[in-house]
Amino acid sequence: MSNLGITSREQNYADWYNELVLKADLADYSAVRGCMVIKPHGYAMWELMQRALDDMFKATGHVNAYFPLFIPKSFFEKEAEHVAGFAKECAVVTHHRLIEKPDGKGLMVDPDAKLEEELIVRPTSETVIWNSYTKWIQSYRDLPILINQWANVVRWELRTRLFLRTAEFLWQEGHTAHATYDEAEQESLTILNVYRRFAEEWMGVPVISGLKSDNEKFAGADHTYCIEALTQDLRCIQAGTSHHLGQNFAKAFGTQFQSAEGKLEYVYSTSWGVSTRLIGTLIMAHSDDKGLVCTPRLAPIQVIIVPMGRDEAARGRTYPVADRIAQELTDKGIRAKVDKRERESPGFKYNYWEMRGVPVRIEIGPRELDAEQAIIARRDTGEKSTVSLADAASLAADLMDTIQKFLYERALAFREANTHRVNTWEEFEKAFAGEGGGGFVLAHWDGTTATEEEISNKTKATIRAIPLKPLHEDDAKPGVCILTGKPSKQRVVFAKAY
Amino acid sequence: MSNLGITSREQNYADWYNELVLKADLADYSAVRGCMVIKPHGYAMWELMQRALDDMFKATGHVNAYFPLFIPKSFFEKEAEHVAGFAKECAVVTHHRLIEKPDGKGLMVDPDAKLEEELIVRPTSETVIWNSYTKWIQSYRDLPILINQWANVVRWELRTRLFLRTAEFLWQEGHTAHATYDEAEQESLTILNVYRRFAEEWMGVPVISGLKSDNEKFAGADHTYCIEALTQDLRCIQAGTSHHLGQNFAKAFGTQFQSAEGKLEYVYSTSWGVSTRLIGTLIMAHSDDKGLVCTPRLAPIQVIIVPMGRDEAARGRTYPVADRIAQELTDKGIRAKVDKRERESPGFKYNYWEMRGVPVRIEIGPRELDAEQAIIARRDTGEKSTVSLADAASLAADLMDTIQKFLYERALAFREANTHRVNTWEEFEKAFAGEGGGGFVLAHWDGTTATEEEISNKTKATIRAIPLKPLHEDDAKPGVCILTGKPSKQRVVFAKAY
Repeated sequence: MSNLGITSREQNYADWYNELVLKADLADYSAVRGCMVIKPHGYAMWELMQRALDDMFKATGHVNAYFPLFIPKSFFEKEAEHVAGFAKECAVVTHHRLIEKPDGKGLMVDPDAKLEEELIVRPTSETVIWNSYTKWIQSYRDLPILINQWANVVRWELRTRLFLRTAEFLWQEGHTAHATYDEAEQESLTILNVYRRFAEEWMGVPVISGLKSDNEKFAGADHTYCIEALTQDLRCIQAGTSHHLGQNFAKAFGTQFQSAEGKLEYVYSTSWGVSTRLIGTLIMAHSDDKGLVCTPRLAPIQVIIVPMGRDEAARGRTYPVADRIAQELTDKGIRAKVDKRERESPGFKYNYWEMRGVPVRIEIGPRELDAEQAIIARRDTGEKSTVSLADAASLAADLMDTIQKFLYERALAFREANTHRVNTWEEFEKAFAGEGGGGFVLAHWDGTTATEEEISNKTKATIRAIPLKPLHEDDAKPGVCILTGKPSKQRVVFAKAY
Repeated sequence: MSNLGITSREQNYADWYNELVLKADLADYSAVRGCMVIKPHGYAMWELMQRALDDMFKATGHVNAYFPLFIPKSFFEKEAEHVAGFAKECAVVTHHRLIEKPDGKGLMVDPDAKLEEELIVRPTSETVIWNSYTKWIQSYRDLPILINQWANVVRWELRTRLFLRTAEFLWQEGHTAHATYDEAEQESLTILNVYRRFAEEWMGVPVISGLKSDNEKFAGADHTYCIEALTQDLRCIQAGTSHHLGQNFAKAFGTQFQSAEGKLEYVYSTSWGVSTRLIGTLIMAHSDDKGLVCTPRLAPIQVIIVPMGRDEAARGRTYPVADRIAQELTDKGIRAKVDKRERESPGFKYNYWEMRGVPVRIEIGPRELDAEQAIIARRDTGEKSTVSLADAASLAADLMDTIQKFLYERALAFREANTHRVNTWEEFEKAFAGEGGGGFVLAHWDGTTATEEEISNKTKATIRAIPLKPLHEDDAKPGVCILTGKPSKQRVVFAKAY
């Protein structure tokens, strides 16, 4: 990893990603296995994501609350599929005290402070939340409950990657309770739609909304909906999931309510979440070999202004103009900043802010000032144009929408160019073979888990989604399974997954 | 605990508090020892607190970031005072997997999944953060670092109380790094002032800003500043602390930087935090036997509108008026809600929203409508007035400032009435004796830990703060210690503490 740049995507996509995350000051490794430090620039992106999502959750009737970090082991045991899905990789608290070692050299766990029952650091909160809901729900009048929580969770992953898969990550998890199946179904689809809109309108990432196959659904769900995006290395990344849990958790926790007709019934529920993985998804969608490319709506700094200033005289001219333009932008609601570092060259500053994904740069030099002009550079296209100084702020502000739209459309065109429809096993294998193989492959499947697993074993490609709406009309027509030749109702999306 | 109300403060202050927290839907007990569930109404107050504090932190140059939940045991050992302060009550993760029991009945910790090094669930993050800062800081140009984190922390408290003392709680913790002692000192005082302003201007709680005695300072600090408030049962509650850590953590972690003069020096640091305990402080400051009294700036719902409606005809008249007033209030930036529940009586609704601390209620009945009037009720004073319908929204909006100010002034008058100056040991003991004893007692102290401990052993009163500014001019004059008769520089604040 050179001091000046990062590995190119073509050279090594994985290195490119890791180096970008570090050099753009988004995150850092920590001394704790699998846990990352989210640095201020990366965290500012997360705060913008949180704010936008939180507003959308509240606009759809949800409220926030907070439930305990720890889950008693016995809660975990109550839902069989759920525990099977999470018990293998969890952090277990067994003691509540450290004491000095007998030799006085350091600390050890106090054997007398062993917990009666072990506590699991939540990998997800269904069980601890349903323990509360069971207390809160007696009658149909207590329903629905529409609660979301912003929290940290821990899953003891073996192979971790910054933002994409870490032992601890930040997320939101919604947990709702309903009187009927249909209402829970509606809720899980409402949220799926919130997630899709957020991905497309804020992140500029086109996604496929779909249903997971039984093999890929959430441990404990009746069925799972998802949004799936394509990365530049032609793999699929799951960006969010919304689970209809049926009555599974209500039955595990004995959560019954008296219906309007006076009958005792089990509650229906949903859960849904997106995490700091979205930052990884955003990076992979748009960024280039110069570093992060971020959509304006999620960029902590939207416009960086670089006033030239070799000496006091030059700075005396450029700085006040830079400050004035920054103020104009701030007044328009744009997050703008002036880079007045004196020991760094303009070239260094351009690279620095390009690495960090600032969508627009305004350069103000003495020569431009003489002509009452400034230079505006776009991060996404690299395009530079000379504009009248008087118009610089409003042109930069206008670029926000332009760039937001451009990034989405470029990503959509990329996805379309890398979405293939195949009809035979030979074509299918070829689609995933060698260099440049991958992307979204739409193919027919006979609907069985056995076939899905055989396909995955042979090609590493898995079913990422059964689309809710066909990408193209013909995708919804019946066909025959690429592996078994058995009948298939519609094409499903295969890809290699992150 | 009756269904209709709560125990009065006079009857049993502790019961009053606990019942209020539960009945006002602020928090609930969980099945996890010492951990609470923060319910939506309580969490909404926390969100308002977070937003206000976060804005103040950002306005003073701070940024947010996120560091790991887990702290390797070896980090903990590095700062001797720090570990002594926190090792006795911490959650220790020792394993990373559960497996099925041999008999197939439930789960057990997998003995093969023992961690090489135990991890502590953070009780505070100095050590894990300084491990990162040591990597990030090389030169004076990397300083200052002004980072804050919003997070959950765990301290294995034996006696817990909702919001006031829980095993897990939510907080913010600022961790800053500076080149000089003076800069770190300035930082810790800047933050203390932010905390004081927040307590007074948002919570309506007057606080004493002071220095902690050595006995009470943070484990690992050079010195600790605090803000302290008085509760209605005449005890003291610590509402926030700001620590100047000197070079203690830098030395423990080897964090050195090259100064502008080219010398290698240890970094100075601060840390500071407030937590969900603030919600407990707010409850105790203003609430009464009808439930929560909340300042308008921190009330999730600021105005509740109750339209009467025995029948469809009445509702047809009152509901549109209620909606119109709600809209007017929303347009003015007021958080307003209309209670249209049809199976509940107006009286039930009044009690319901009074319990939850809504500052202003507007009642709209057919009789009032006939006269083009509405009734406005204040939660703080209980005062009711009949006003012209056309003015209802703007009068209710104006009450926000009035009530905010009134609550602060009432709390200040209460504190002043319960602040005593004593000069002899006899007076001191009497001040804390029996019913009605307590409050803030300003007395002279010889400055030694031995005397402080003896006073505490005899009376349960401890030094809560050495005021930065005297409450009254005379407090800063020298005197003699109430216990030992030795010389004292100024009066300090004694109280029984939460």
